[in-house]
Amino acid sequence: MIPEKKTIEAAYGRIQPYIQRTPIMTSAGVDEMAGCKLFFKCENFQKIGAFKARGAMNAALQLPPQQRSKGLATHSSGNHAQAVARAAKILGIKSYIVMPNNSSEMKRRGVLGYGGEIFLCEPNLRAREETLHGIINKTGAAEIHPFNNYEVIAGQATVAKELIEDVRDLDVIVSPVGGGGLLSGTALTVKFFSPTTKVIGAEPEGADDAFRSMQSGKIEPAAVNSVADGLLTSLGEKTFNIIKTEVAEIITASDKEIVAAMRLIWERLKIVIEPSAAVPLAVVLKSKEKFFGARVGIILSGGNVDLEKACELFNKYR
Amino acid sequence: MIPEKKTIEAAYGRIQPYIQRTPIMTSAGVDEMAGCKLFFKCENFQKIGAFKARGAMNAALQLPPQQRSKGLATHSSGNHAQAVARAAKILGIKSYIVMPNNSSEMKRRGVLGYGGEIFLCEPNLRAREETLHGIINKTGAAEIHPFNNYEVIAGQATVAKELIEDVRDLDVIVSPVGGGGLLSGTALTVKFFSPTTKVIGAEPEGADDAFRSMQSGKIEPAAVNSVADGLLTSLGEKTFNIIKTEVAEIITASDKEIVAAMRLIWERLKIVIEPSAAVPLAVVLKSKEKFFGARVGIILSGGNVDLEKACELFNKYR
Repeated sequence: MIPEKKTIEAAYGRIQPYIQRTPIMTSAGVDEMAGCKLFFKCENFQKIGAFKARGAMNAALQLPPQQRSKGLATHSSGNHAQAVARAAKILGIKSYIVMPNNSSEMKRRGVLGYGGEIFLCEPNLRAREETLHGIINKTGAAEIHPFNNYEVIAGQATVAKELIEDVRDLDVIVSPVGGGGLLSGTALTVKFFSPTTKVIGAEPEGADDAFRSMQSGKIEPAAVNSVADGLLTSLGEKTFNIIKTEVAEIITASDKEIVAAMRLIWERLKIVIEPSAAVPLAVVLKSKEKFFGARVGIILSGGNVDLEKACELFNKYR
Repeated sequence: MIPEKKTIEAAYGRIQPYIQRTPIMTSAGVDEMAGCKLFFKCENFQKIGAFKARGAMNAALQLPPQQRSKGLATHSSGNHAQAVARAAKILGIKSYIVMPNNSSEMKRRGVLGYGGEIFLCEPNLRAREETLHGIINKTGAAEIHPFNNYEVIAGQATVAKELIEDVRDLDVIVSPVGGGGLLSGTALTVKFFSPTTKVIGAEPEGADDAFRSMQSGKIEPAAVNSVADGLLTSLGEKTFNIIKTEVAEIITASDKEIVAAMRLIWERLKIVIEPSAAVPLAVVLKSKEKFFGARVGIILSGGNVDLEKACELFNKYR
């Protein structure tokens, strides 16, 4: 069932011992460039370096004891893999993580660091799902989907909950959108706790399936061509159902605009964020007229980027 | 006169409206690597991106009104230049900043952004001092020396004051040392407010003049060969007098060790620091036995680094 006000409050109480309350940062210089007042919610400082720690933990904590004891399973090339492995470690159970064989060494090390067992497969959705189902059949582990899961959505909704508690009277919150877990959670939080705030999704041009889905009214397949490697999946049914009614608009940004926004955040806020986390600021800077004079919450979704890769991007789009 | 307990308390009260109380960060992963408990004082989030905002402001606020009205002057290629320009802007007076003609575009823009007037000169100490004295003779502006000035030292001392207020029972504080303003200020704060804490200076091997000065008992000239470009000056008489009696030890680190520590902080803490700010962690990691099991305060002095330059360093010392 779509998370309600009480569901989100309960999720927050449940995961609070296991997550960071991340800080809000501001920059007068960036505000001046943007023509509005920006409040950056720094989930790059979250456990595992991204908001994904919230949703995975909320889902894992709600498994019935017998189911829980069989472990957790998921397929992910990114932050959700570490989030599930960490949740399992905290609960003292096993985790089985299917990762594409082209996933980065750094991310594999993250999963192994939390005691996760990695299963490599070919880098396509079919191979990932088949490998995962094989493991689940064998172990009885519980699948934790990265976004198409209401417990996960309720967990991600707690990011915006902290944001609106710390910053009053936001006119808009801009969240990145990939599979839609964070965006749909943000939209629900705003609906229940700050209904005058508008929610906007920020998406890479090269993976603009959410933008197209909003136009067509049905889930469109994702293109997969963007530097924002955390946002390449298409929406799920559960996330799209929430997004299509609760989100005002999806705005896209080019890779060049995303890297420029990422550079600005590294240089001015002195913090490290991953490309996907830069999309909301990129969207604000390219659509200034829409945000002029407003109080804008920006969700910096994560900070897991290889320094070599970041440097390549800065160099390429200099 | 060497700052006393009351002087540092007064300095803190005086500058508080104009500076940030910067956060303390921790990382379980880095603690594990270091074998001790580290508390990072994040002056990279300070106004102008470095602790220098404190000392310059404290000195500027203590000028007699008539002297103050004639403006501020200094020579600096780095963070102190921006700190003086910012102090002048806040006070509504002029600032005259002598910068070497090889100083970075980014740093010049910083000074101009605060309304400072820049005078370029040849990149050597004699040209810098001559240019500065010419300006002072003409304008009557007050020189604010970057470190050999007791008001500046008392201002920099407030970094450690906040650190020991936020983190109880530190066994050691490790501070970078260039001209010695931050290190001598840290040593005074510890002497007055936390006398059981030890203070250690962290210096690049390629500019180990403070290390050699401690051996010889007199101020040794600085070598100027290190990636830690904020730490290339030699000590001043005022800073050395404090350091030689109040600092337990100076430890040096190589450029390779400095860049490795910088990378670790970017990757694990998800924050941007400049090479000079990485020297204390480099020193702890290379001398683990000295810090084993201790509670260690690490002063991250600043975050002003060109991304292109940082990427070059990461690549060179990979």
